[in-house]
Order: sequence, then C-alpha cells, then structure tokens
Amino acid sequence: MTVPRLNTALAGPPADLERELLASTATIEHWLRSKWQDHAAPFYCSVDLRNSGVKLAPVDTNLFPGGFNNMNPDFHPLCVQAAMTAIEKICPDARGAVLIPENHTRNQFYLQNVAVLQTILRHAGLDVRVGSLLRDITAPTEIKLANGARLTLEPLERRDNRLMVDGFDPCVVLLNNDLSAGTPEILMNLEQAVLPPLHAGWTVRRKSNHFQAYREVAEEFAQALEIDPWLINPYFERCGRINFQDRKGEECLEGYVAEILEDVREKYREYGIKEQPFVIIKADAGTYGMGIMTVKDPSEVRDLNRNQRKKMAVVKEGLEVHEVMVQEGVYTFESMDDAAAEPVVYMIDHFVVGGFHRVHTERGKDQNLNAPGMQFKPLAFAAPCSSPNPDDPDCPPNRFYAYGVVARLALLAAAIELEVSLEDESPSRET
Amino acid sequence: MTVPRLNTALAGPPADLERELLASTATIEHWLRSKWQDHAAPFYCSVDLRNSGVKLAPVDTNLFPGGFNNMNPDFHPLCVQAAMTAIEKICPDARGAVLIPENHTRNQFYLQNVAVLQTILRHAGLDVRVGSLLRDITAPTEIKLANGARLTLEPLERRDNRLMVDGFDPCVVLLNNDLSAGTPEILMNLEQAVLPPLHAGWTVRRKSNHFQAYREVAEEFAQALEIDPWLINPYFERCGRINFQDRKGEECLEGYVAEILEDVREKYREYGIKEQPFVIIKADAGTYGMGIMTVKDPSEVRDLNRNQRKKMAVVKEGLEVHEVMVQEGVYTFESMDDAAAEPVVYMIDHFVVGGFHRVHTERGKDQNLNAPGMQFKPLAFAAPCSSPNPDDPDCPPNRFYAYGVVARLALLAAAIELEVSLEDESPSRET
Repeated sequence: MTVPRLNTALAGPPADLERELLASTATIEHWLRSKWQDHAAPFYCSVDLRNSGVKLAPVDTNLFPGGFNNMNPDFHPLCVQAAMTAIEKICPDARGAVLIPENHTRNQFYLQNVAVLQTILRHAGLDVRVGSLLRDITAPTEIKLANGARLTLEPLERRDNRLMVDGFDPCVVLLNNDLSAGTPEILMNLEQAVLPPLHAGWTVRRKSNHFQAYREVAEEFAQALEIDPWLINPYFERCGRINFQDRKGEECLEGYVAEILEDVREKYREYGIKEQPFVIIKADAGTYGMGIMTVKDPSEVRDLNRNQRKKMAVVKEGLEVHEVMVQEGVYTFESMDDAAAEPVVYMIDHFVVGGFHRVHTERGKDQNLNAPGMQFKPLAFAAPCSSPNPDDPDCPPNRFYAYGVVARLALLAAAIELEVSLEDESPSRET
Repeated sequence: MTVPRLNTALAGPPADLERELLASTATIEHWLRSKWQDHAAPFYCSVDLRNSGVKLAPVDTNLFPGGFNNMNPDFHPLCVQAAMTAIEKICPDARGAVLIPENHTRNQFYLQNVAVLQTILRHAGLDVRVGSLLRDITAPTEIKLANGARLTLEPLERRDNRLMVDGFDPCVVLLNNDLSAGTPEILMNLEQAVLPPLHAGWTVRRKSNHFQAYREVAEEFAQALEIDPWLINPYFERCGRINFQDRKGEECLEGYVAEILEDVREKYREYGIKEQPFVIIKADAGTYGMGIMTVKDPSEVRDLNRNQRKKMAVVKEGLEVHEVMVQEGVYTFESMDDAAAEPVVYMIDHFVVGGFHRVHTERGKDQNLNAPGMQFKPLAFAAPCSSPNPDDPDCPPNRFYAYGVVARLALLAAAIELEVSLEDESPSRET
C-alpha cells in the first residue's frame, strides 16, 4: 500500500512510543475490541492531541465536534460507513433524525460543518432535518453557504414529549450543540433518544471527570503494553471553588501548579527532556479555548492582572468559571510552515474517521492553539490512522496510527465518564 | 463533496433505474438495515454486475473473492473499518486467524490478493497466518511477490479438532478457497469457526439456490420501491440432469432456453429495447468462467459440436458438470477503451468497500467477460458507492451508489441462501 500524499507536521524518525504502539497493533486492537464490548462509544467525538515526540496525549475531548468541514473529503466514505454502524445501534427500525446545531448562524465554517454532517448522515441512510434552538427561526430558513452548499434551519416543535420539525417526527435527536448556555427546556424529558445525551453538555460535564476516567484508561492500557502511562497521560488536578474576580481560592491553584510542575520536572529529568515544564489552567466546564492560560511558575497565578482575571472568569455563552483544572502542559513539537500545530482526530462511533491539524502562527509550542487566529490544515491527514506498516518505520501512516490509538483511549474515557455522570446527575431525569 | 477522479465505464445521463435508486436512498438504507437485523452478512463477498442502462443485475456472487489486489488502494481504510466490524462479530475476544488460500502458488495476481487481504485483517487487529492446503508446503515458505510484498505460506496442522499453523491456534479459519476440489478432511468438524462456512464451497453451493434467494429479495425490494423487479433480476431456470458428453438432458436445456428468450423478448418490447435477447448457460456449481456459453436460439443447444460439449462438461479442478443454470443474459453497455466492461463490487460484512471494472477486449457485450484475457481496471471506482448526490444527477458516485445497492441485494440473497443450505446440508455435520 502506498501513501498517495505525504503531509505530516512532525518530521524526523518516529519516537519510541510510536514504535511501541506500532509493534503492538494486534494487542492494541484486541484490547480496544474487548473494551467496546463493555462500553458504548459516544455517537461522535473529536480529540485534540499534543505530540512532543516523547509524549503523545489528549488535551481536550469534544463530544460535539464542529469541524467536519475541515476533514479531507476523501475520508467521507469512512465517515458514512462508521455512521451506518452508529445508526444501526441507535435506531435500526427508523429513518429520521433531527440535528440541533449551535446558534452561530453567521459562522460560515461552523455551518459548513453542519452541512457536511447532514450529508454524512443522509448517505448513511437517515432523513436528517436541522432544527434550530434560535428564537428568530420561526419558519424554514435556507442559508446559502460560501462553498455552494445549502442548509435549511427549521424551528423546533414540541408535541407532548416528542421533538419535531414541521410534523417530521424523528427517532433520534442528534446534538451538535454543547449546551454551554444550559439545557433548554424543549430538550428535557423527551421520549426520543438524545445523542450525545444531555448530561454530555457543559452544564453537567466537567473536564476533570473526563481526565479522571482517562487516567484509569491510560493506566490500564499502559500496563497491557508495558509502557510508562505518563507517556500518554498528562498530570492534572482540580480546584473547585475559584472566584477570579474576587481573588478567592487562588491558594488551591498555586499549590497544584507547584505540585504538578515538580512532578513534570522529575519526569523531564528521567527522559532527558531539556524544556521548561509548564501547566495549563483552564475552566473545568466549557469550551472554545476561552479561559485558558499557560503557567510556568506558581507565582504567576498569584500575580494575575485585571485583564487576565477577566479573561479567566468567563467562557462561552457567559458561563462563569468557578471550577478550574490545572493540567500538565505538553509541548507540541509539530509545526507546519513554522507555525505550531496539533493534531485533531475525529471519530464516529468507535471508529477513527479522519482528522486535521490545528495550526496557529501567533502561538508558541507551549500555548493553547484553540484560539482566535487558528487555521485548519485538512490535508495533513493524507493517510488515515488505520494503515500502519511496521516494516517501514518512515511510513507516514505510522504516526497517524499512533494518533488514532491515543484518540480512541480518550474516546473510551468519554464513554466511561458518561456512564458515571449518568448515574450521578442527569438533567433530563431531574424534572 | 467533489470527486477527485472520474473514471466510469458508462457515459451519458443516468438511467431511470439509477434515478429511482438515488431518490430513494433513505428508504433503501432503512430497508437494508432492517434486513441485516434478521440475516448475518457473509464475511466477505464480491458481485459481478451487468449494466445495460435499463437493467442493472447481478450475474455472479462470489463468496471467496480473489481480487482484493485489483481495488483502489485509497479504499484500504474502508476495508479495514468493515473488517473491524466483521471481527467484532466473529471473535471479539480473540486475536488470531488462519487464512486458507487457493492452491495457485504461481498466480502472482492471486497471491497479491492474499497479501492484501492479510494486510487488511492485520490492520483491523488480527494476527493472520496463511495456512496452505498444498501437500508440498511442509515448512514455512516465503514467496516474494512482483509488487515487492511478501507472503509466507505455512503447512496446516490438525490437533484434535483444532486447526493450527506451527502451534499458532487461531480463533477463526478464514477461507479464501472455494472448495471446488471438494471439502478437505482437515477442515471438517473443526471446533473453530470456519468463515465463510464449508457449505458455501462449490461442493455444496448451487448458483440456482442463490438466484432463487435473489429472486425473492429482488421482488420484495422492488415492491418497497415500487419498481419492476425485472429491472434488477435476470430470469433463470435450472436443469438438474445434464450429461454433455453423452448428449443427455438436452431437451430440458432447449425448453428453458426457448422459454426465457420468449419472456425476455416480451420485456424488451415493453421497454423498447432493440437488441436481440440472449441467455447464458453455465454450470450450477463452480466458478472461473469455464463452462459458460451465450445462446440466442434454442437450436444452438441441440447442435453443440464436440469442442463445445467438452468445454461445458468440466469446470475448475475437474469438477464434472451435470447441473446447469439457464439465465437471462444482460447486455453490458459499459465499455472502457472500446472493450466490454462489467463492474465488480466488493463487500466486507454488510459494507460496500470498493470495486473495479472487469474489461475484456476480445469479448462482446453479450458474452461472459470472466474468461482468459480479461483485465482489471482498479481505478474505475474513483468514488465509492456511498456518496451519491441526488441534486447533481451527473455526479459519478450516483452510478456507483446504484452498483452498491444491487450488490448488497445479492449479498443479502447470499446470506439467506447460506441459512437455507445450512439446514439442508452441511459437510461439517455429516461425518
């Protein structure tokens, strides 16, 4: 099998970890296979990875992926096939779905993502209508997209405990909206399945729960492969009672920052890494790269200026930040055209279906790249993650295979996280 | 979604049937989805189709596909993903398989097919060893293939009721050998699953049973779509007691040839088709395009010369022909570089994973193309069969979608055929 186009963001020979993963393909796939017997993969998922060469770890796991428009169109059939498997599980007997997008009607890229998603699901054999939560969508509204595609937003209707659009009664409600603004009443206590479930939204979900589950997954996986779990798992801690504006709870932050930096320093010594350790402080709920900062010394947390406090205090949809996660930062040693890059892997059901590189020219290798000014390089994944060739260590799919493995570990963690949070709390069951 | 490379063998606007299938995608996928709940798809399958423009029908369904080497390498990830699904069903808890190929150790193309298949299964997470039925393989034998790949054939061992190679104990035995030479004793009464099952081999299998099942599938499908079942279903009859050498049973042949030609003539009148109807006479068991002839008049069957009789009397591995199928011939109106062409669709589990065109420069549009001198054009399926766009009738995946639908109907017929023949007769249960 030859690889038609090579376009990887990390040059040079593969790291030890990649070699290890490649040599263990059968063990890995077998291990994952047995896990998917016990845990149901989320409907879809994207995972942001950081690859320092030595370490390859997830730093964000998104259960409402919004970048299907950035994927290589050649991977479309792979998405369709995976979606077929997902649909067989969700509603084998039915054929209709309502897709609920975010409320960004002016973001062309996001709307293209919705259109691509709708096409994937249609090709997989679902009638898909797009139902909007926006109050000003009171009649079917066609939006022409810059790439020539069209998208029709329709108003959602509630009839007793069923959600519909224009009399169309779907068997499943698919969310591409992360519920940062809270769980809308119209979605509560529905008879239809809602996927991902409401408790996957940011009103309930916490990153620290995800990384708690990921820690356990990574440790078990590392044991099966006899590798150091740190190579795939970033250290983290959680501070539950922060008020940035009132300067409350900062001693918790400072303490954990110091602790994690010390632990990482130890590991860097062990692996002969010369870089300076850093941690990322981010909101425990919420997304979009707001409320994220890079810290290299505990004192930085003490001396936040007014602007930094303001930035950390609020994320998307005005959600206030009181819970914070302190996570070991992973340098990205991937770059494209001299800009820092990180891989984003897309999955549908338990299959890797593609990905792209997030690239940011204005950000350093120790910073969050999910920020205004970022770009996407959909061609980066010239080869999918399922075709490694251990006999040829320079074969680019090898690196992509490693991405796909770590991304699926994060996916498994998300599956377990959702099982746990379903037991703890579910807004659809509260009322 | 753009299609990067266009390479279809049938030019011109899409036929009514294609338009019909495209407009009914959601209904079709829903219909198929419900069928796969009741019937287990064979492990893999290839279907030869004939496309006359008006009519699109399967003419041969192969349960031991031998042309994975002819597929577009871009479709490799699709094969891997489908194989993952198949493996999850077969042996979720295990990781080893033995693949048993045909005994053609000198056919480079066939050996490349085995190597590609092994790679697909490895990438899906199986340890795959190739176990040969050949007596002269007494030790592991590495064969270097013309394309640079390597294949190691190993001798099969039987320990009690388990099949192994060199102490390697697989959870499943995968057959890529159609058992034309009979069912070898070493494969009988195994504890391990054998896939496809032994009764899928040509010692038990009959084309007429397949087309009997296909007729019922096609009729139900046609009813669901409100189309004429003839558009996807060739007429056929079966003669069970022929002896070509001794000129016995010919009156059965002659009668059915006349009958089918008359029925087809009627249909041609109905659809305004100006061509002359023809039938194909072929062995009811066996493969490789031997024992196949084109007949346009019942008298031709009476006047067979010595050479024709000899050709019809024996197929692969010296299997004698006493059972014969008479099947409506479907003109192929597809051509590449002025040579007659027919599409071959490949499936793993219930997913279409690719295909190619079989092309023959020496054969006419009313002849069997599966004959010495045939070539394969793997680039033909530039786009896979799962991405049609009903808004753009000239989009080439539209035609490929139609191929994928009819191929999956044949796959469903094969699933039903194997259920029925398992009840009737199973060599692994006889002894």
